[in-house]
Order: sequence, then structure tokens, then C-alpha cells
Amino acid sequence: MELFEALHTQRAIRRFKPDPVPDDLVRRVLDAAIRAPSGGNSQPWSFLVLKDAEVKRQVGAFYKRAWDHAGLSPLANDPDPSRARVYSSATFLSERMGEAPLLILVCLRGRGGQVSVTSGSSIYPAAQNLMLAARGLGLGTVLTTVHRRYEAEIKALLGIPEDVDTVALVPMGYPAEGVRFGPTSRRPVEEVAFQDRWGQAFL
Amino acid sequence: MELFEALHTQRAIRRFKPDPVPDDLVRRVLDAAIRAPSGGNSQPWSFLVLKDAEVKRQVGAFYKRAWDHAGLSPLANDPDPSRARVYSSATFLSERMGEAPLLILVCLRGRGGQVSVTSGSSIYPAAQNLMLAARGLGLGTVLTTVHRRYEAEIKALLGIPEDVDTVALVPMGYPAEGVRFGPTSRRPVEEVAFQDRWGQAFL
Repeated sequence: MELFEALHTQRAIRRFKPDPVPDDLVRRVLDAAIRAPSGGNSQPWSFLVLKDAEVKRQVGAFYKRAWDHAGLSPLANDPDPSRARVYSSATFLSERMGEAPLLILVCLRGRGGQVSVTSGSSIYPAAQNLMLAARGLGLGTVLTTVHRRYEAEIKALLGIPEDVDTVALVPMGYPAEGVRFGPTSRRPVEEVAFQDRWGQAFL
Repeated sequence: MELFEALHTQRAIRRFKPDPVPDDLVRRVLDAAIRAPSGGNSQPWSFLVLKDAEVKRQVGAFYKRAWDHAGLSPLANDPDPSRARVYSSATFLSERMGEAPLLILVCLRGRGGQVSVTSGSSIYPAAQNLMLAARGLGLGTVLTTVHRRYEAEIKALLGIPEDVDTVALVPMGYPAEGVRFGPTSRRPVEEVAFQDRWGQAFL
């Protein structure tokens, strides 16, 4: 797949076919993730691939509890229909996270809870590579973080060391019947790009 | 360019030709950046494109001061030659940041300094899209964050509102003579991927 096609058609996929994801595709996706940049090429990432049904079920149960406690239910009635739609779809996912063909827990090593926004600069580019590579292989993903409400419990469940942070939970699978990749709706470049000074139009 | 070729050959480029970057390419790069996912499709990004020589010079001077104060000089003698090389190249960049054909300041809106690692999940995927799109167009970039030592000064200089954080400074230009894109060296998937439980081999 052409690079710009992948960039422009990646979108959050939250409903999956039950078909398993072949191991060699998981490997290609991870091999793309590790090509991402990181500060001083520190590569502070680990990827915990969850395939076991019982492990997925338990992590999914934590996710569901975290989602229910996130206080987002007012979004169901948001006047912006796209926000209401995202909420509805994300709620659907929260009920079935543990049934996704595969879950990938993206981990950041060596910060031990001391995670500032810039530590994200050494891990979320890898997560984005992972999701773009999945898109290129016809696999759907979505980046989620609400599991962090139960970070301690999930780390205990999976034997994750203390100095490791779980910074994203990414379900992966073939998109369900009727679920399609992009294009996505975004505010245009004109509205978010400035030139030389804040507020000054680009071009 | 094919997606996986871009993913596997993106690498930090820190030396640029003086040639300007055509505006239509900057626009394509930004149009790829805004396709990235963000929490609840909040799109909390702004991109400040710095083209004016004097503005770049001033931001570059802050970058140089921040780099010099980052206490990284022991890396010059790091026993790992790849770390020593990154340090040397990054020091070179710190002396010429303001001369890059273009600087893009990646901004995160609405957090007002309350930036946790997960707020990074709504901005660094966009930064990665930006750098991959640049790679696809033959443009070099590198993700830097050390300017944040002078975050307040840079925000004042560029008129950036209080509730906006500048989370990355990305120079962009055509790679200098002799500077090439990837492949990059990374610890292999086997060493960073686990299955179902921390420490358990993937596959």
C-alpha cells in the first residue's frame, strides 16, 4: 500500500471479525513499530501481545470497568453527532475488548511512573507505526489509554515490572462486516497551521 | 512510496541542504499529520511553521542553550558507538537548528501544562505521521523536545497562548549531501515482544 493512502485511510476500528491474526502479520506490525524514533535511540518499548482467551478476558474486564468509571456517558447525548458516534462505538468496544482477536499492550520501560508528556515522544510514534502497518495489512486497530485506571492491577496480572508503564492498549483484528477504513473527518490544515507566529495564517 | 519502505527507512536527519521546502510539500506533510488518531477525535494539535530567518534564529538560539544545559556531553564518550554518534550528530544540529530550511513546532492545545504521558497519545502520532509523510516526499526530519527547557520564552516569542504546550520541535529539509535515509538499527522484535505474560517469548 502506498504511504499516503495508509496515512489518509487509517481510522479507529472498534469492531472485529473473530478470525485470528496470523503470527507473521503480528510480527510485521511489531517490526514496523520498532522502526519508530525515540530519544537518543533509547528504544524504551516493549509490546505485550495478548492472545490467550482468558488473559484477554481479564484485561478486557478491567478495561470495561475503567470505561464505565471514566464519566464519559454524557457524550452519548453530545450535540456534535461525530462525538456521540465515537462515544457509542467506544462503549461497544468496552464491552467486547476482551474478545478482540488480539490485544497489544504498549509498554514504556525505565520511567517507573515518572512519565511526562515528552516521555510519550519515545513511545507513541512506535504505537502509530504499529497502527499504520496494521492498516497496510488490512488489520484494524484503535489506540486506547483508559485501562490505565487499573494500571497496577493489570501489571500484577501480567507480571509487568514496576519500572514499566503500560501506555496504550491496542486491540487488533480484521474489521467486522460493514466496517471500513477511512477517509476520516478532520479540521483542515488551514485551521490548525500557523506561520512564524501564533494566529498568523500558513500560506 | 510504499508504506513499509517509508516505515523502515525513516531515520533522524539532522543535516540539511539549504534549499527551501516548497509550500505545497509542507501542506501535504501537515495534511498527513492531521489524519492521526487522537482521544475522542479531539484533534488537540496546532502546527507552527517557522520560515522567517530571524524567527528561526531566535528559536534556534533557545534550542542551543537548552541542548548545552541538558547535561548530555558525557555521551560523547559513551562506550556504545551508536550513542556517541547520535550525541555528536545532535550536537551538530543544536548549533544549526535555526538554519534549518523549516522548523515545525508541534503544539498540544487545551492542557495548560497539565500534560501527562497519555496526553502524548493525542499528539505524537500526529508528529509521527508528519515525519513519515516527509520521508515519503524525500524530506528529512528529527523529533526533538529539549527546547521545552525554554518553553515559556519560546511561547512568549511566538505569541503562543498559555493553555498550549509546545511538545516537539521538528526541523525539516532535504538531507545534506551524503546524508541518507535508513535502514535503522534496532533491537529485534524477539527482544522487545512478549506473549500473554511479561518475559514470555512471542511466537
